[in-house]
Amino acid sequence: MSAATREPKVVVLGGGSWGTTVASICARRGPTLQWVRSTATANDINNNHRNTRYLGHDVVLSDTLRATTDFAEAAGCADVVVMGVPSHGFRQVLTELAAELRPWVPVVSLVKGLEQGTNMRMTQIVEEVLPGHPAGILAGPNIAREVAEGYAAAAVLAMPDQHLAARLAQLFRTRRFRVYTTDDVLGVEMAGALKNVYAIAVGMGYSLGIGENTRAMVMARSVREMSKLGEAMGGQRDTFAGLAGMGDLIVTCTSQRSRNRYVGEQLGAGKPIDEIIASMNQVAEGVRAASVVMEFADKYGLSMPIAREVDAVINHGSTVEQAYRGLMVEAPGHEVHGPGF
Amino acid sequence: MSAATREPKVVVLGGGSWGTTVASICARRGPTLQWVRSTATANDINNNHRNTRYLGHDVVLSDTLRATTDFAEAAGCADVVVMGVPSHGFRQVLTELAAELRPWVPVVSLVKGLEQGTNMRMTQIVEEVLPGHPAGILAGPNIAREVAEGYAAAAVLAMPDQHLAARLAQLFRTRRFRVYTTDDVLGVEMAGALKNVYAIAVGMGYSLGIGENTRAMVMARSVREMSKLGEAMGGQRDTFAGLAGMGDLIVTCTSQRSRNRYVGEQLGAGKPIDEIIASMNQVAEGVRAASVVMEFADKYGLSMPIAREVDAVINHGSTVEQAYRGLMVEAPGHEVHGPGF
Repeated sequence: MSAATREPKVVVLGGGSWGTTVASICARRGPTLQWVRSTATANDINNNHRNTRYLGHDVVLSDTLRATTDFAEAAGCADVVVMGVPSHGFRQVLTELAAELRPWVPVVSLVKGLEQGTNMRMTQIVEEVLPGHPAGILAGPNIAREVAEGYAAAAVLAMPDQHLAARLAQLFRTRRFRVYTTDDVLGVEMAGALKNVYAIAVGMGYSLGIGENTRAMVMARSVREMSKLGEAMGGQRDTFAGLAGMGDLIVTCTSQRSRNRYVGEQLGAGKPIDEIIASMNQVAEGVRAASVVMEFADKYGLSMPIAREVDAVINHGSTVEQAYRGLMVEAPGHEVHGPGF
Repeated sequence: MSAATREPKVVVLGGGSWGTTVASICARRGPTLQWVRSTATANDINNNHRNTRYLGHDVVLSDTLRATTDFAEAAGCADVVVMGVPSHGFRQVLTELAAELRPWVPVVSLVKGLEQGTNMRMTQIVEEVLPGHPAGILAGPNIAREVAEGYAAAAVLAMPDQHLAARLAQLFRTRRFRVYTTDDVLGVEMAGALKNVYAIAVGMGYSLGIGENTRAMVMARSVREMSKLGEAMGGQRDTFAGLAGMGDLIVTCTSQRSRNRYVGEQLGAGKPIDEIIASMNQVAEGVRAASVVMEFADKYGLSMPIAREVDAVINHGSTVEQAYRGLMVEAPGHEVHGPGF
């Protein structure tokens, strides 16, 4: 950006681990304000440069990051809005934003799920509630804590307008956080929503003691299955082979911290899904997404055997053994054009 | 196959771990003969149903598998030839085969490397030495020992003729070994040759203590970089996102047994490449492939930064720290169409 251009003010809405991490990254680049609900969190960020509740004591945030609990203040001064609120609160926050936000201000979602009930992607909600505001999504293999601790990572920023995407990408970029761009908004959002279902499938496999070959097979076929649905919906195949698809799937399937993997492992141990959910602090998005994927598969007339088996275990009383047996009896066909697993 | 068709006799050439594993799989389906150089190995297979040298004592082979050291016998009776000999002996064995083999007999390679000196793919050598014989490759995330022990796995069989591919795939298929088909012979062979270089890159990262995000980033960008070269050479993008590309890369990067990953880790520990190679029983294909990839990158005018940095460490005295720094200073661009890392 040339010296004559005012630095855009980034406003991050939400006080969770990823929203805070992104806010801290943006604050290293330029003026950034984070809106959080909790006064304690705001004080922690402003006075201690920490978000102890979500990122622990060891992660020190950028000392230029400011936090507020005043929604109107945050909304009113935003040149760029970053949405770090969970999918169930997303529409409500946008609705409140509508009254305050200046025209044309771009809205970047950090949310990987779909809206419950409507199955809408977050950028679709932005288009509905804030028409005229360019909507994008930033996603990738980004365990918040690792990024916050300064480990190198990459993400992709998807916006329909590539000029805008390239400019916005600069706001999120640091020496250690690599932000690529793409125009495939739908693909990136669907990859984020779908991969959790496939992480549960791999997690179920761990409980059966699958080998490394088997895991790689399930992951490769999962990318293919995700691509199939994503393309039918209008996304691009390359997105699913990229950071938001395959990249995020690798982290979600291999990380010890992955909630969706944990769900799969617990299902394999024979625990009922309600009990597993009750034992967790946070919801594993894949649990809900499994039935959503089946609705989409139905709508687009696609066979999606991996998602089908995960759905059968979560929602229809099937066992993990039956799920893997169900996959293995499918005849393998052409790797790309074959209809099944 | 209908009852009236004679079962094709599969002849596997080579007595290594993967050749033996594939021979044992084929023997479960129909008549199979394995040619090995060592009398001791032949006796072990015939009398003990084991290849103790390569697969240890616990792996029991199909009791219908027969082995011979008589090359002429094996070559003369083959309806399908499976090439399990290493790349450096591949051409020689094919040349001996030329005098004995019946016309039209298909030749399926199990070899993931390129020929030293010529940089030819194995199926190109088949076309040169045995013109008129359909040539294919079987590859995927297949750690021989795991497949031999009965863990589920998948591979892709690439042949130009999809009817033939579908028929041959049946010879390799079991309930636990899923063989998909594709017509992208070049893509599957190049994926197999290239992925070792990228496994070294990830291995170098382990030595630097990279996080899970970073690893997923390098893997996702590696798939993109491989695709770029593979497509320039005439391969298909989907192949690199499939079993032989991403699938095999996942196993090679995460497995503790991966030789190429080990090389990367040792380079990171500051050991010179000659010392690392001397300490290993088997050559890590990626060491040689690194400079080959750079030749190809040159020939096709492509920027391939990950391979470039691996080559710099192996062949030009660069350090692992410099390699990762070299990658991180590259500006991220469009995820698919950007020129660099």
